[in-house]
Amino acid sequence: MNNLSALWSASSVAVIGATERPGALGRKPVDYLIRYGYQGRILPVNPRSSQILGLPAYPSVREAPGPVDLALIMVAADRVPAAVDDCVAAGVPVAIIASSGFAETGAEGAALQAEVVARARAGGLRLVGPNCIGAVGFRHRVLATFSPLFMAESVPFEPGGLAVVSQSGALGFGVASLALERGLRPGWVVSTGNDADVTAIEVLRALAEEPECTGLLAYLETVPDVTALRELAASGKPVALLKSGRSAAGSRAAASHTGALATDDRVLDGALRQYGITRADDVDDLLDIGRAFSGPHRPRGGRIAVVTTSGGSGILAADAIAEQGLTLAPLSEETRRELDGIVPAFGSADNPIDITATVLSDPTLLDRSLDAVARDDTVDLIIGAFCVMAGPDVDKAVTAFGRVADAYGKPVLVARTGADFLAPDAPARLRAAGLPEFPSPARAVRAAAALATAVSGAGAAVPAVPAPDGAVHAVPAADATEPALKRLLAGAGLPVPDGTSVTTASDAVAAVTARGGVAVLKAVVPGLLHKTEAGGVAVGVTADRAAEVFARLAALGGTVLVEAQAPDGVEMIVGVRSTPLGNVLTVGAGGIFAEALDDVACRLLPLRAGDAESMIAELRGARLLDGVRGRPAADTPALVRVLEALSALTADWPAGFELDLNPVRVLADGALVLDAAYTLTKGDRA
Amino acid sequence: MNNLSALWSASSVAVIGATERPGALGRKPVDYLIRYGYQGRILPVNPRSSQILGLPAYPSVREAPGPVDLALIMVAADRVPAAVDDCVAAGVPVAIIASSGFAETGAEGAALQAEVVARARAGGLRLVGPNCIGAVGFRHRVLATFSPLFMAESVPFEPGGLAVVSQSGALGFGVASLALERGLRPGWVVSTGNDADVTAIEVLRALAEEPECTGLLAYLETVPDVTALRELAASGKPVALLKSGRSAAGSRAAASHTGALATDDRVLDGALRQYGITRADDVDDLLDIGRAFSGPHRPRGGRIAVVTTSGGSGILAADAIAEQGLTLAPLSEETRRELDGIVPAFGSADNPIDITATVLSDPTLLDRSLDAVARDDTVDLIIGAFCVMAGPDVDKAVTAFGRVADAYGKPVLVARTGADFLAPDAPARLRAAGLPEFPSPARAVRAAAALATAVSGAGAAVPAVPAPDGAVHAVPAADATEPALKRLLAGAGLPVPDGTSVTTASDAVAAVTARGGVAVLKAVVPGLLHKTEAGGVAVGVTADRAAEVFARLAALGGTVLVEAQAPDGVEMIVGVRSTPLGNVLTVGAGGIFAEALDDVACRLLPLRAGDAESMIAELRGARLLDGVRGRPAADTPALVRVLEALSALTADWPAGFELDLNPVRVLADGALVLDAAYTLTKGDRA
Repeated sequence: MNNLSALWSASSVAVIGATERPGALGRKPVDYLIRYGYQGRILPVNPRSSQILGLPAYPSVREAPGPVDLALIMVAADRVPAAVDDCVAAGVPVAIIASSGFAETGAEGAALQAEVVARARAGGLRLVGPNCIGAVGFRHRVLATFSPLFMAESVPFEPGGLAVVSQSGALGFGVASLALERGLRPGWVVSTGNDADVTAIEVLRALAEEPECTGLLAYLETVPDVTALRELAASGKPVALLKSGRSAAGSRAAASHTGALATDDRVLDGALRQYGITRADDVDDLLDIGRAFSGPHRPRGGRIAVVTTSGGSGILAADAIAEQGLTLAPLSEETRRELDGIVPAFGSADNPIDITATVLSDPTLLDRSLDAVARDDTVDLIIGAFCVMAGPDVDKAVTAFGRVADAYGKPVLVARTGADFLAPDAPARLRAAGLPEFPSPARAVRAAAALATAVSGAGAAVPAVPAPDGAVHAVPAADATEPALKRLLAGAGLPVPDGTSVTTASDAVAAVTARGGVAVLKAVVPGLLHKTEAGGVAVGVTADRAAEVFARLAALGGTVLVEAQAPDGVEMIVGVRSTPLGNVLTVGAGGIFAEALDDVACRLLPLRAGDAESMIAELRGARLLDGVRGRPAADTPALVRVLEALSALTADWPAGFELDLNPVRVLADGALVLDAAYTLTKGDRA
Repeated sequence: MNNLSALWSASSVAVIGATERPGALGRKPVDYLIRYGYQGRILPVNPRSSQILGLPAYPSVREAPGPVDLALIMVAADRVPAAVDDCVAAGVPVAIIASSGFAETGAEGAALQAEVVARARAGGLRLVGPNCIGAVGFRHRVLATFSPLFMAESVPFEPGGLAVVSQSGALGFGVASLALERGLRPGWVVSTGNDADVTAIEVLRALAEEPECTGLLAYLETVPDVTALRELAASGKPVALLKSGRSAAGSRAAASHTGALATDDRVLDGALRQYGITRADDVDDLLDIGRAFSGPHRPRGGRIAVVTTSGGSGILAADAIAEQGLTLAPLSEETRRELDGIVPAFGSADNPIDITATVLSDPTLLDRSLDAVARDDTVDLIIGAFCVMAGPDVDKAVTAFGRVADAYGKPVLVARTGADFLAPDAPARLRAAGLPEFPSPARAVRAAAALATAVSGAGAAVPAVPAPDGAVHAVPAADATEPALKRLLAGAGLPVPDGTSVTTASDAVAAVTARGGVAVLKAVVPGLLHKTEAGGVAVGVTADRAAEVFARLAALGGTVLVEAQAPDGVEMIVGVRSTPLGNVLTVGAGGIFAEALDDVACRLLPLRAGDAESMIAELRGARLLDGVRGRPAADTPALVRVLEALSALTADWPAGFELDLNPVRVLADGALVLDAAYTLTKGDRA
């Protein structure tokens, strides 16, 4: 698939719409390619010029000397179809359409965009854009862009392993400029605009295949397809996304900006967790994570040791570790004893380890503490935090941190809350030592969390949880009743109450008697969705009342289901529905409260090992399962089995349905699906 | 009170423990004061030197030529008491004890600290510290500190209106160094260490009185007293706090760092909301807010207009505005029409207003759009957001933003997501134009939220909500029963069910009959806390069953309360308890769920106008009051009245109690306190 690599390593670039006119956008790519020393062939295309900036120009790309690896189309929208035809005819494999005037302007532009994509696909040409700012491969100096980023006389760069991909050209190149300024050494920047043919995620996947790539950052406004996201995560390269449109207002603004359908943000969140992809909060967060991705070491997990010279920094780090769901490494007995002998009495030998400003008079203190901590198997990653330290002291600290990171192969992130003028060489020295640096403990912790998430992202490659019985299960009938659904669920290994359908009062009495003399009776009426509200459910029915209750329920127009009365427990809502991103499982605690308090977790199906546990852990209401106010703890593993069996059953159901298990009651021992409803919705993947 | 101003404007500074020895901490303040051109008298004190760095030295501060406005004590802890005595004898009004070895080291150090404070107080000397790094007044070049911040040959500063106060010296001076580097022009930096006598909040109050002060930033680990915080807010100067110890682990680390009791973080959050003080998330956030405080204009509220050249930036801004609880300004019909005529078709004339990169070819586009927006009364603050723009384009934008900010007196915050190398003059030009600048839309929005909060902070001066009946109410008896408590509550204007206590079965039957033939019966047994669990509550009791139920409840050993059966509604938990910060009112929705999901809001008493409404709005469970799943909306104003009447009743109750109203049921019309319990706890303000 990787003909997309022409975007960053083309040996020849045609600029269609090139011009010499000062200030014109069509001049910039030619100017940039020349000034920044691109070594391949630059092919300006303009029917009204024979020479542009000293290079021969061609009336059409058909007439440019081949092969042309990459074309950058910058002509007005109405002339794009002809330019695309020319590229096809010239055998160009990839073209970037920078021009605006397509789907982002409305229906007419969308039609033009569809037309252009159709012509390209028919001709075997891949298209990036339209409505984008182009692509850059720093290593080969492929500056196929008109971004003002390169307008300065000279932008110094040293290509590294970080890739930046953005649907918004302005934000993509803005982030890239900040990455350059902050020493993150981006290797690639690609803007994909309207994602009409090649999508941003496809570009990310192609970049992940580049051996030099160490991490990927992206700004996205829409994620129409998560399969590519899963494949991206499976590449093993760490990924972070800044996805806008989280709020309703932002989502409206995104829809108006891109013309694309809004992504269900909660579903996307769930998918990203499954795939070990971090969702960045903001531009700085994205860049901080990129900085961590650039470091040479990877943690095995999320257990952090903090070594600080400032008690305050230690506290801020501990707060951030809790907030990010990481763990303060517990430290072994041996390490604690060792630290007790090293750390001054007015410091703290407990994690966060405060070695105090005494380090200024005794520099070995830092070395000895770091060795003790790095050697400890309970420590996956170390954060070294200090504030105002002047040049020579910073240098000593950098040496100590760098040594221990390399000696133990564990990442060390440095939080330095002090101005660069205090230690002007510090940023370069930290970079040289492979130590990612952050201006506060919280930002270091947040980047550590992204590293830990990326490691967990091996999850993208974990196989799906198999069905308990290995069987393939049928889809329910469109009008499946509660007993039919429950039989289907039971067949797939989900626990349902012992029940039987009855059609006569005497059978009802017998069924209640057979269930210990007290049971639940439910009306089974196709199309009756709100049974409880309609008076269709009676609990605690004794044998002597069974006939009377049967008569009342049967009067609603159907049969009656008699079920064993379930013990007390914690009620959960569980559901599966099809979405444009795939079938999604949702779980929440506490019935009506889960909805009202918006406390639900989602994952795409199929669930993988660990997904069900992590969904439950994500719920604030998970505390209800632990037992509150003296109630016994509920059988959470039984709930996990319910979710996994449900995943195996429904993962492949075709689009256009909603299955609600509401409630699933989690008992002290086991769980029971007490109710089930199945609704057809309009297909959403068609 | 403001003899604390010596900390930043002393005309003479004694350095007790001064030395010439290179590298020694005691050399630094003398060195800094000389090198940075302090114009007052520098008085080194050292019994073993007659001259230090060219200045005459004195064996004791008693022998230094007076008056001495400020002493900086840097001798070892065991010699601090004598130094304090010397300061008292010399009539020094304020001393900073930089020395460590006090409460932060354990019981012995705490005793020494208490001894030192006692001596100072007896002698009329105010003490800052111990265990701090000193104080700086940039305007008068009072560098009474040994912070490495001034070790560099020269740190350029231009004193502005921002004050930085910190219990942690390292973080305080770290933040100050970043403030200097980022052009925020701090005017004051004070570290207060252990807060043994003068507290950080007292320093903040003193700084708020300085006419040049435009805003205050603080890092705190403990807030033992919120009265001073309220007085600080009432000063009208905007304040932001970075308070660490939010998590359990952070709180433990803070307790071990400062030896102080942990502040109840949730109570502090509530108090800060009441007082219009922003709680910063992190160091960058604190500095961003400081940047906004430094701007010349203040918003009237939280309605934001976003004007951007990048659709992506607009979406990110909209997301952040939603997250921060601000409002995208709706814009008037007139403004919308005007913008429709200005903004290109492929941009957005709706807020966020995307004027697109067309601004590069038509610079008047920005001016015209900004005028339309700034003129609109629905706009309190404008965020101008752009990404990569090169020098001259940035200059034009800065001019346009600055003009409109000054013309309309509305704050304009600039989000520029691009490297400084693209527009090297931009930071200075933005600063000169009074335009606070941020690297992303979200950070600008967050700072805008702090400005809006500070304006709402007039709330600190709003009078308390008065008791509905103007009366002063008694405290309950220690063993107050439910009927006694409910009489007390009813007397204070809280709605309780119509009830009566009965002692005979026939009275019970009569009471039920009088209440419409169905009522609630409750056992009233002093000391029986969990009535429901003990079988002491019967609902839906009809007259024919009343005698039987009465007998069962009376058998529990007390009387029986007969109450009118309450209509359906939304159940809330409401409580008041004394805390070290004062009496605190708590409200949550959904009974057991409020606790399990940790969905409660707190405020210090007395409530002020608007507090009750804002507490309810803060609850995720507030949705339950709006009516979910087709249930009718509940009478939220009635709940507000309950909270306000409860505030008036309990604000002055002495420490050592807990009052639980659980549940308060909010009906379609009105509300009812269904249960009440009062518990004495051990006094926590003694």
